[in-house]
Amino acid sequence: MYIAKILTTLRKTILDPQGKAVENSLKSLGYDNITDTRIGKYIELKIDAKSRAEAEKTAEEACKKLLANPVMEDYSFEIIEGGE
Amino acid sequence: MYIAKILTTLRKTILDPQGKAVENSLKSLGYDNITDTRIGKYIELKIDAKSRAEAEKTAEEACKKLLANPVMEDYSFEIIEGGE
Repeated sequence: MYIAKILTTLRKTILDPQGKAVENSLKSLGYDNITDTRIGKYIELKIDAKSRAEAEKTAEEACKKLLANPVMEDYSFEIIEGGE
Repeated sequence: MYIAKILTTLRKTILDPQGKAVENSLKSLGYDNITDTRIGKYIELKIDAKSRAEAEKTAEEACKKLLANPVMEDYSFEIIEGGE
C-alpha cells in the first residue's frame, strides 16, 4: 500500500483571488510582512499497488484525468510507502 | 525572505465528503485501487522575517488565527529559505 500526497497550485501567471483575500485578511490582522499568498489543493490518497512505479503511474494519471486542471494548474506529488 | 508551505487537513475522525466525491469519481474512471481520499488546503506564503525562528512564529500564528479551523482541522508547515 502506498500513500500519494498530491499538491495542485494555480500557475504563477494566473491571478489567485482566494490567495489575495487571505493575504488581505492577514494584513488586517497586522501581518504586513506576508506577501505572495497562493492557495492550492492538497489531496492524499491510498493506492493499492504492487510497486512504487505502479503507484506513481496511478497518481500521475489521476492528476491528469481528474485532480488538476491542466490549463490552469500545476501539480506535484510524492509517493510514500506505508499505510495498512 | 522565507517561504512557508502550509497544509491543512480535516481531522481523521471527521467525514470528508469532498474526498469521498473525488474517490467515487476515480472509481468511475476505473481506479478501484484508490481509497481513503482526503482533501485539504495548500497555502504558500512569503514571509519577510529576520530569522527562521521569526518566520516559523509568524506561520504558526497565521495558521492558528486564520488559516486552519482549530476544531476541525490539523495543520503542518515547513519553512524554506529563499525567494527574492
